[in-house]
Amino acid sequence: MIVGIDLGATKTLVGLLTKKGKIIDQIIQPTPKKLKRGGFFIVEIIERLLKKNRIAKNKLIGIGIGAAGLVDQKKGDVILTNLPEWGKINLIKILRKIFPCPIFLENDAKLAALGEFWRGQGKGTKNMILLTIGTGIGGGIIIDKKLYTGQGYGGEIGHMIIDPDGPKCGCGSYGCFEALASGMAIKKRTNLEPKTIFVRARKGDSFANEIIREEIKALSLGIINIIHIFHPEKIILSGGLMDNGDFILPDLRKIVQNKILKRFCQSDRKVRIEKAKLANQAGLVGAVYLILGQSVSCRPKSRL
Amino acid sequence: MIVGIDLGATKTLVGLLTKKGKIIDQIIQPTPKKLKRGGFFIVEIIERLLKKNRIAKNKLIGIGIGAAGLVDQKKGDVILTNLPEWGKINLIKILRKIFPCPIFLENDAKLAALGEFWRGQGKGTKNMILLTIGTGIGGGIIIDKKLYTGQGYGGEIGHMIIDPDGPKCGCGSYGCFEALASGMAIKKRTNLEPKTIFVRARKGDSFANEIIREEIKALSLGIINIIHIFHPEKIILSGGLMDNGDFILPDLRKIVQNKILKRFCQSDRKVRIEKAKLANQAGLVGAVYLILGQSVSCRPKSRL
Repeated sequence: MIVGIDLGATKTLVGLLTKKGKIIDQIIQPTPKKLKRGGFFIVEIIERLLKKNRIAKNKLIGIGIGAAGLVDQKKGDVILTNLPEWGKINLIKILRKIFPCPIFLENDAKLAALGEFWRGQGKGTKNMILLTIGTGIGGGIIIDKKLYTGQGYGGEIGHMIIDPDGPKCGCGSYGCFEALASGMAIKKRTNLEPKTIFVRARKGDSFANEIIREEIKALSLGIINIIHIFHPEKIILSGGLMDNGDFILPDLRKIVQNKILKRFCQSDRKVRIEKAKLANQAGLVGAVYLILGQSVSCRPKSRL
Repeated sequence: MIVGIDLGATKTLVGLLTKKGKIIDQIIQPTPKKLKRGGFFIVEIIERLLKKNRIAKNKLIGIGIGAAGLVDQKKGDVILTNLPEWGKINLIKILRKIFPCPIFLENDAKLAALGEFWRGQGKGTKNMILLTIGTGIGGGIIIDKKLYTGQGYGGEIGHMIIDPDGPKCGCGSYGCFEALASGMAIKKRTNLEPKTIFVRARKGDSFANEIIREEIKALSLGIINIIHIFHPEKIILSGGLMDNGDFILPDLRKIVQNKILKRFCQSDRKVRIEKAKLANQAGLVGAVYLILGQSVSCRPKSRL
């Protein structure tokens, strides 16, 4: 058994999975805004999950954590971007005291990319890019069937500048992809939740539809850039905004198709833009893949 | 012996190289604007080079060609973007009739990236990006010590949109990196050759210096994006504008350093922005690497 953890700013999902990436059991609960002294809440959830399923700690193959923020995989440090009160914590150090198995840490979008690649929409691809379009925009790059991070932080596609005259981003720059095309960007422009905008747009509201048109245009800019740089087999979209994927994908695909260089549209070399398949479980599945990939003796077949 | 060819819109460079990438002899001559019927000019240059060095055709290990334009590596087709009168020609078919060795084809910036990686500024890196900043902007991506092209056309960094309100690009889009930061972009804005602008800027001319400031700003946008996406060890700059690299690199590095996300500046994970080392011979050296890399039995050591 493997424990997969998706540590988000709002919710924490902890799952118990088989080596094949099948979820046996899971617990979801709100992420505490502040950390209590003493027992760390994730340790408690894992222990509850193990007890419930009658699994001993020393039977765990590994623990994989995807965290919504800045992750130093080597040191084990995590800064949750949207939970400033947590400060910097060393998750690996905390968990290692309690659990004797290998523990690996990655950014949540990157783990989700691994999950979709292994068991979801990215199955069978060699090169794919996952974008999580939620409050922010995260990226996970799979190259040659492996997660690509360069020196460790690569994949920050949300901070690709696509319009230097655009709105200011949380990072301090102007016109980042995230500042133009994320859920937060919609909220800032309209003072409304993206979900509300979609409900109104589906009912034919012209203001809401104009906002969706702008959103599709902003998304298309980032996606065109990804295609020209990576020419991957697939670009996979996940995150909260993709709950309304059916409403935006047809137009998004059309705009992208019309704007990319012609040779990128050749019938045998097309780039498919698809909605993710595993929803919020992609990170847990990716955690299994990350752990098995680190240990040569039990490397998943599809990675060979 | 290996033959390396750098087929540009202005000049064609044909070299004879050892397996270690050392250039033994080379011939450079203008690329004909129109193709004559009968003998193909590159065949003639290769034959001249072989004769001069007393090498028999059947002693060649391979021929590697870097072409300044659209390249279909599988089919062998080339369209030289800046020589529309050539139309589409199949270089591999033409050369295969005469030479019995393996023949490989790639885009010129990509071959230059391989050359710099193997024997130039990129030596020892695992992940690096080469940008050729000349008339246009080309890109070559080395990931995990291999040339990355995705489904074949990846690396079109020059057509990354960095300002949708920017000038129209040759590709039809607005605000591509190439349309903002290439030599052609400078020429369009000023009606002057980039070289002239640099001469005047060095003499203290304020208009010329303003143009250079704009150029550095545009370059910084593209480079910041590359850093956030790839977090490579090095970004290597080559091409005509880099003849004046000493004049722009210090300011370029400062601007990039100030604008990238802080964690990309960590002392042990810095991205170095450097001028290429092999100048116009990078493509020839890359051709050797391409050919040796295709044949496992004589794969260069540094690739293993």
